[in-house]
Amino acid sequence: MIRSLGVGLAGFGTVGAGVFESLQKQQKLIEERSGFSFQVRGIAIRDPQKQRKQFLPPSLLRRSWRDLLRDPHTQIVVELMGGTTDAFELIKGALQSRRIVVTGNKALLAERGEEIFALAQEFRTPVFYEAAVAGGIPIIQSLRDSFVSNHIESIHGILNGTTNYILSCMQEEGMEYNQALDQAKALGYVEADPTLDLSGWDAAHKALILAALAYGFWVSPQDIRVEGIEKVSAADILFAKNFGYTIKLLARIRASSDGIIEIGVSPTLIPMKSILASVSGVFNAIAIKGDLVGESLFYGRGAGARPTASSVIGDLVTAAQNFHLHLSSERTSCPIGFSSHTLYGKSRLAEEIISSYYLRFTVEDQPGVLSMITTIFGQYGISISSLVQPESRVDRKTSLVFMIHRAPYGLIQSALEQVRTLSCVKSEPILFNVEM
Amino acid sequence: MIRSLGVGLAGFGTVGAGVFESLQKQQKLIEERSGFSFQVRGIAIRDPQKQRKQFLPPSLLRRSWRDLLRDPHTQIVVELMGGTTDAFELIKGALQSRRIVVTGNKALLAERGEEIFALAQEFRTPVFYEAAVAGGIPIIQSLRDSFVSNHIESIHGILNGTTNYILSCMQEEGMEYNQALDQAKALGYVEADPTLDLSGWDAAHKALILAALAYGFWVSPQDIRVEGIEKVSAADILFAKNFGYTIKLLARIRASSDGIIEIGVSPTLIPMKSILASVSGVFNAIAIKGDLVGESLFYGRGAGARPTASSVIGDLVTAAQNFHLHLSSERTSCPIGFSSHTLYGKSRLAEEIISSYYLRFTVEDQPGVLSMITTIFGQYGISISSLVQPESRVDRKTSLVFMIHRAPYGLIQSALEQVRTLSCVKSEPILFNVEM
Repeated sequence: MIRSLGVGLAGFGTVGAGVFESLQKQQKLIEERSGFSFQVRGIAIRDPQKQRKQFLPPSLLRRSWRDLLRDPHTQIVVELMGGTTDAFELIKGALQSRRIVVTGNKALLAERGEEIFALAQEFRTPVFYEAAVAGGIPIIQSLRDSFVSNHIESIHGILNGTTNYILSCMQEEGMEYNQALDQAKALGYVEADPTLDLSGWDAAHKALILAALAYGFWVSPQDIRVEGIEKVSAADILFAKNFGYTIKLLARIRASSDGIIEIGVSPTLIPMKSILASVSGVFNAIAIKGDLVGESLFYGRGAGARPTASSVIGDLVTAAQNFHLHLSSERTSCPIGFSSHTLYGKSRLAEEIISSYYLRFTVEDQPGVLSMITTIFGQYGISISSLVQPESRVDRKTSLVFMIHRAPYGLIQSALEQVRTLSCVKSEPILFNVEM
Repeated sequence: MIRSLGVGLAGFGTVGAGVFESLQKQQKLIEERSGFSFQVRGIAIRDPQKQRKQFLPPSLLRRSWRDLLRDPHTQIVVELMGGTTDAFELIKGALQSRRIVVTGNKALLAERGEEIFALAQEFRTPVFYEAAVAGGIPIIQSLRDSFVSNHIESIHGILNGTTNYILSCMQEEGMEYNQALDQAKALGYVEADPTLDLSGWDAAHKALILAALAYGFWVSPQDIRVEGIEKVSAADILFAKNFGYTIKLLARIRASSDGIIEIGVSPTLIPMKSILASVSGVFNAIAIKGDLVGESLFYGRGAGARPTASSVIGDLVTAAQNFHLHLSSERTSCPIGFSSHTLYGKSRLAEEIISSYYLRFTVEDQPGVLSMITTIFGQYGISISSLVQPESRVDRKTSLVFMIHRAPYGLIQSALEQVRTLSCVKSEPILFNVEM
């Protein structure tokens, strides 16, 4: 027996259109496997005049997301409209009217996840969000359900395909940043506004969601250090390679031994031999270390209409399975998609997080320069593990590249402020984290 | 509010003891995250006299698995006793009495999965089995739930840690098979009876379960080709390396374009550059290609007390979430853990499966040998893509190594039968699949 559920779809961009198309194309398979059939009852869009690749049946077109909540036969609301204001109102309205929510909105969850799950809790109505992190990779379900008995020691993720594609081009083909960015644009891997991707914030939103799932509380986006890939140059890629590393935009989430959570996103040198180093192109990967499960890794496409639709439909089926439970008198055992817990609850200030570093300056090629810089490092107790001064010099300038032992980020920043005042230092320092 | 559920545990070997220990050690975390508390109400063991590393509280000791079914407060039965007769009876009894089943028994599911899920269907009571395939890797849940909307094009898996450890030693340290096996034994990576692992059957059982999930029907273990790693030698590893490949015990599951399913497990040459090639030591990995999600890969520990316990407890929480649904009048929407479907339903005979091959013989080092062999290949329409005859020879014998273009396995076998009759051929042919 096939049970039918009504779906209201908000947003008809790449992912929304992909979900609509996939629900139709894979309908038979979904019904056979799950026993559920999903009827899209309305599609809310912002601009009805907009040219669209995908046909939107006029009978389904809704001018406002509010219309989706007016349909009594819509039991599940799929929010793929983006933004953090209307999308929040839609989700709020859905939960208040006891409609299960499926969303792919990473920015909204990272910024207002706490409010959203408080509403989910209040109305005992679940919110599913597999599509919000790493497209087609089932990382939310795995972390939430499969690893439920694990203290999560760390999560390391390549969470943004656009930037990983750019860095891969630089790594594998020796391109400069702008050349790689142009190639990514030509292949359609770059959004109309690439700021969120390139600045690291898209990855950071995903990292904040993973951290919340792993540790049971939400860290504010303001409280973490996020750096994009704009400063990575072909020179850095080459120096890193000579040290045995590749550079990835890495999200790092870690519970340190004192129980405080550390989160950060920045270009990071990772050993060429590590499995994350082999993740190239638009692919995403997430390495999780749990106290029971040990090391595990999930790899796949982190974006795109079809991979993301796959995750949305996976959530729809889970929503459907929960639907009767959610309506029944046993509602309290219906999981809401997130659980607050109290084992941890503090995140470390960015400047107090300890890491190893890669550091490069351009300096004047004259005697005493190295001594001046290392003297400053010494005064701050910063210890150098390796140093390279390459032969090549241009206009009497040369690069100095340091690998620096573990130290708090704030301490490095203070030392660099003083180094900057030296007249022999001719460039902004380039500082990246190093993971072992 | 924490809800408590009673668990009956059958088996107290490595995994059973790991589950018992982890349920106690991680109790607070599990309760906070899931809202459920699991009370082990009885532990059934075969031999009460056996020396055990882990303390088994005498009050919980049950002499027979039947005792677990006599306890009215046991709602979930965890079957980790192994074997396919008593274990089947226990699962049958549990389902008949509407107790949810969690099992890690790959051999039982591979051999009698069809019967077990018919019972699950009849009594609308779910069976969960994450621990049966690839230890701590959440591959069952991902394939069953997250990828529900995907036609699965192929699954390639390294599904046995023992054999992967042995092959990794051979690959990375140039060891011979027996030397690597001894090292694996010394490290505790080899079971008392290693036959299932070394023969490829442990991996094959897991492959049959994955295939059933992907395609909705059960293929009989008798109908697939399974080869172990016993014939892999240091020489083969070296020849493969020179061709740009590494040798892995690979489970291959594929839906071919005519909709027929192909399943096989054997030592297989895979390109050194592929991500599966970088899976070394006791780790497992599964690469899945779905029509929506594209390529994805799951990597982690495939065995061991704690990783497997992590999967069992993940299943317990899912079981608990389903528990009230399963009891309610809405029981028909409670998923039973497997869905038969009818899109496919046929598996291809082993001899009709087409692959590329690596083939090595020892032959007499005399003129005309190569011509005799290639003439036979020619008669069968078998095409050679590459050939190596190394310089080294011993006792006037030499190796001939062929890379062979795609051909049905049966055709290769027929040709080899004829090659074997040549007096210049001095060894059994070594034949491995090659994946591109």
